[in-house]
Amino acid sequence: MKVIKCPKKMHKISSELSLSGKKIGFVPTMGALHKGHLSLIKKSVSLCDETIVSIFVNPTQFAKGEDLACYPRNFKEDKTLCRQEDVSLIFHPSSSAMYPNGFQSTVFPGKLATVLEGKARPSHFAGVATVCCKLFNIVNPSIAFFGQKDYQQFLILKQMVFDLNLPLKLFMCPIVREKDGLALSSRNKYLSKSERADALALFSALSAGKKLIFSGERNVSKIKNSMNSVFSDFPLAKPEYIEVADSDNLSPVKKCSGKTILLVSAKLGKTRLIDNMLVKA
Amino acid sequence: MKVIKCPKKMHKISSELSLSGKKIGFVPTMGALHKGHLSLIKKSVSLCDETIVSIFVNPTQFAKGEDLACYPRNFKEDKTLCRQEDVSLIFHPSSSAMYPNGFQSTVFPGKLATVLEGKARPSHFAGVATVCCKLFNIVNPSIAFFGQKDYQQFLILKQMVFDLNLPLKLFMCPIVREKDGLALSSRNKYLSKSERADALALFSALSAGKKLIFSGERNVSKIKNSMNSVFSDFPLAKPEYIEVADSDNLSPVKKCSGKTILLVSAKLGKTRLIDNMLVKA
Repeated sequence: MKVIKCPKKMHKISSELSLSGKKIGFVPTMGALHKGHLSLIKKSVSLCDETIVSIFVNPTQFAKGEDLACYPRNFKEDKTLCRQEDVSLIFHPSSSAMYPNGFQSTVFPGKLATVLEGKARPSHFAGVATVCCKLFNIVNPSIAFFGQKDYQQFLILKQMVFDLNLPLKLFMCPIVREKDGLALSSRNKYLSKSERADALALFSALSAGKKLIFSGERNVSKIKNSMNSVFSDFPLAKPEYIEVADSDNLSPVKKCSGKTILLVSAKLGKTRLIDNMLVKA
Repeated sequence: MKVIKCPKKMHKISSELSLSGKKIGFVPTMGALHKGHLSLIKKSVSLCDETIVSIFVNPTQFAKGEDLACYPRNFKEDKTLCRQEDVSLIFHPSSSAMYPNGFQSTVFPGKLATVLEGKARPSHFAGVATVCCKLFNIVNPSIAFFGQKDYQQFLILKQMVFDLNLPLKLFMCPIVREKDGLALSSRNKYLSKSERADALALFSALSAGKKLIFSGERNVSKIKNSMNSVFSDFPLAKPEYIEVADSDNLSPVKKCSGKTILLVSAKLGKTRLIDNMLVKA
């Protein structure tokens, strides 16, 4: 398994792979790999001839005051995990290789990026869209794999790929959870023991919402209230948003019908977590 | 020579050409082809195996009140000219094929797009960058050809290609001029006879500036004043900007040194024209 740092070299290798008829699968990550990432890698390895994993903590998707500096980094362990999963190549560029002096172009997603996470983190999705556009062009994959945990990110990137006619497909893999239900996230490492316990609020609220919908409830105010009340059992978890939305375009709905997604974000101390659940109403 | 309207079909053809080892040259145009465009096409035909010309009057690069509706369109004649020049294929999509319902992602160029034309036409270069990003992804060329007349556009697109790691090279071809010096432009068709005569102001001002620099003048205020005074001989031409800038980044310079570019825009009635001249000081 090779580790490539130079974008030009990476592109040369991936172009040669494509020209020789290989189907490239791509898993873009910020490292600190957990079982969620590994599920994406496994899916790529199963569907593609070569799997390329990028490990790059992208500065432009963090706002000032967010956790860029302390974001978990563990390249050695990531490398071992990738090797175990039959990854062909890790792309591990430096910030200055990705954003050289004079860098100035940005891909701005549209209205999908103005709600939920986009409201909480106004410059976040432009950073994500721009770095993914770059990575897609450098790595040249047939399919790129993303986790459902960042559902809004997935929709935005799918829209970007469609809008800019990027020649690849995106594939969404299900959320991987701890035994008690907490969605895996590199940021779970930030949690103290008591915060970790109360972080279950997100999954519990989503489960409560889903259960209500399954029982026939369609009134979104009632569903949201019920989800919100779950948080009282987890005092360290402070909800930021609790939303019931159309799963195609993230518009808030008043009545559940068709494809619905429940989305939650909450803070535990300084740690901000997100989670979601797709529900067929 | 084929005419392709569907972006997906276009991409399929260009991918197959690439995979078979053909070097694709691309000339993106808004049609109303003149000898300036033909010089780009000839250059592409001479350097590449297959030349693809796009003809698409891109709505997103026109602001409200600009000349989108009356922009000259003459597809029949364009087709004849392309056939004569050995163009392999014309890509001629509809607006709705390029911007389907729900379209929302935009490529924003950075500070290069805030001066000169970017100041006069604030949304113009985001429209140009976005459509070119799309076209490059659809047509998949090795080299795309642009004219020096839109010098700022060329710098912005070169920066975008670099910033977003788009896998192609851009090639700039010299300005093609009428016998008297007027730079060819599809918008010259808008000019009345008397406006056409006074449109020579732009070339004359640039020539005066160049002559001064060649004679040893380095003081930019003096050079600009001299360029400005040329306009008094052409009363129908109203200058919008007269600039002396660094040709690498378009920063205004106070003293000419190294690579300098002179840039002018002017209005003749409702018609806005631009022109420029590279000068080695």
